[in-house]
Amino acid sequence: MTGRVVVLTGGVGGAKLVLGLAQILSAEKITAIVNTGDDFQHFGLHISPDIDTLLYTLSGRANIAQGWGREGESWSFMSALRSLAAEDWFQLGDGDLALHVLRSHALAQGHALSNVTAGFAAAWNLQTHILPMSDQPVSTILTTNEGELGFQDYFVRLRCAPKVNAIRFQGAGTAKPAPGVLDAILDARTAAILIAPSNPFLSIDPILAVPGIAAALSAASAPVIAVSPIIGGQAVKGPTAKLMRERGLAVTPAAIAAHYAGVINGLLIDWRDAPCDPQCPFATADTLMVSLADRARVAKAALDLAARLGAK
Amino acid sequence: MTGRVVVLTGGVGGAKLVLGLAQILSAEKITAIVNTGDDFQHFGLHISPDIDTLLYTLSGRANIAQGWGREGESWSFMSALRSLAAEDWFQLGDGDLALHVLRSHALAQGHALSNVTAGFAAAWNLQTHILPMSDQPVSTILTTNEGELGFQDYFVRLRCAPKVNAIRFQGAGTAKPAPGVLDAILDARTAAILIAPSNPFLSIDPILAVPGIAAALSAASAPVIAVSPIIGGQAVKGPTAKLMRERGLAVTPAAIAAHYAGVINGLLIDWRDAPCDPQCPFATADTLMVSLADRARVAKAALDLAARLGAK
Repeated sequence: MTGRVVVLTGGVGGAKLVLGLAQILSAEKITAIVNTGDDFQHFGLHISPDIDTLLYTLSGRANIAQGWGREGESWSFMSALRSLAAEDWFQLGDGDLALHVLRSHALAQGHALSNVTAGFAAAWNLQTHILPMSDQPVSTILTTNEGELGFQDYFVRLRCAPKVNAIRFQGAGTAKPAPGVLDAILDARTAAILIAPSNPFLSIDPILAVPGIAAALSAASAPVIAVSPIIGGQAVKGPTAKLMRERGLAVTPAAIAAHYAGVINGLLIDWRDAPCDPQCPFATADTLMVSLADRARVAKAALDLAARLGAK
Repeated sequence: MTGRVVVLTGGVGGAKLVLGLAQILSAEKITAIVNTGDDFQHFGLHISPDIDTLLYTLSGRANIAQGWGREGESWSFMSALRSLAAEDWFQLGDGDLALHVLRSHALAQGHALSNVTAGFAAAWNLQTHILPMSDQPVSTILTTNEGELGFQDYFVRLRCAPKVNAIRFQGAGTAKPAPGVLDAILDARTAAILIAPSNPFLSIDPILAVPGIAAALSAASAPVIAVSPIIGGQAVKGPTAKLMRERGLAVTPAAIAAHYAGVINGLLIDWRDAPCDPQCPFATADTLMVSLADRARVAKAALDLAARLGAK
């Protein structure tokens, strides 16, 4: 593929796909539009988990085995925090704190999240364009059987145990796409727009909730291809399948396609879930990403489907 | 001694004396009034070096050999900071960050520095009362041959190299003594008020610059005893002697006594500097504090001088 590629992505699963793309394309052709609905304030620090996961993954700093945070991380901060009887449900690694402290300081001085993120990427020599979905705060709020919960309360503190009745994206109504987001989607050189196999409800829907982004996806000449987060009737990681069941949905690629109806032009599904009829153009592949080669293979399969569908 | 003791103190040298006092008195009888003129904002974090040194020293967490910071500290944060091309002239240890992050967050929420400090001390089971000199910000600013410098710029970044022409305490004019400061000084049960062998110009003068504190020292019934920071015509550590020479002062206990004239009732001097005439009541001792026993010995010598002088 000679064109550019845009990826809408959340954290871990999405970062795998972006890393796969970076194996088969020159990095400067890739633009990742990243969910910031998980962003939150903790001890006054602004934490952007999905952006950080992408930064760590693309720069080779991610702890692959653990699935989050930095490789070779140390934990003196958390230990000191516990000695001071402070809340310790959110793990802040010592090295990880550098991004949080520098970001919080820069935001407090009036810099935009997109600028701060670009600065981090530049310091680590990343050519991939990493854009927050918005520079304005958008917060994913879950209405559950235990009341309203912020994303991190639900995801980290309560380990996704509460039953979710509804999800809303506070602030999305007045948020604007970050600089570069609409340009990348609408760029005539963009040959494919991918939706990473991130959680559709918690990682991708917040991006689609930012006014202007869904319309740009429709208007784009590039086909929009989602990679199904379902593999053999399950999600690889996280609460995707649980959330689908709580909504009364079958845990199938067809349900994913229905969720993204009107947004996507094609779906890449895992062979374990075939045969199925997602009622949209699709391709089948082994979408499980364990090795680096797996990541590249899935990225290539998604781009192949985009190439097969061609410009809209 | 059955009475209470108040100590005016800066960081390292002063913390040694307070630790010495805690060897010979029950800790709850000791009130340390701590310089906050060194406090500064770094990456948006509020850092209180002298308070932290006291907290670490009294709780057994201080890195004695290094002279600052925590024992067994790790440095992943600084390493990550450098990878991000951020300023690295001020060393922030991973464990040390816990105090800075929690303090900054609490202050931003409207808590007073004195409350935050008391909370840290309580979490570490310290009975010694550790009071910042003021809850209002006071900043030590040095006029030097390289221009105006904040304390940390002078002390850490430039390693005290510039020649100092004048020192002022910005904000001191409108600062108030922190809750408990005047009460401790004026308490009829207070049998001695010590001025630790901290830097007179940079650690003690900021405390004396807070309106009401010098007057309370005069009004107190307890004698005020300074421990000379000069040992054998030199300062043990830091720029005390250099600052004295830059002012045209002899590096002697007599010059220290003259500096504190009107504030102190007696001076504890090191035997290496005898004979001398500080023109005030004095006692002589080995004031070099290397071991824990040394610290207790110097504390006892200072209290003995106070007992000899008796209530004013």
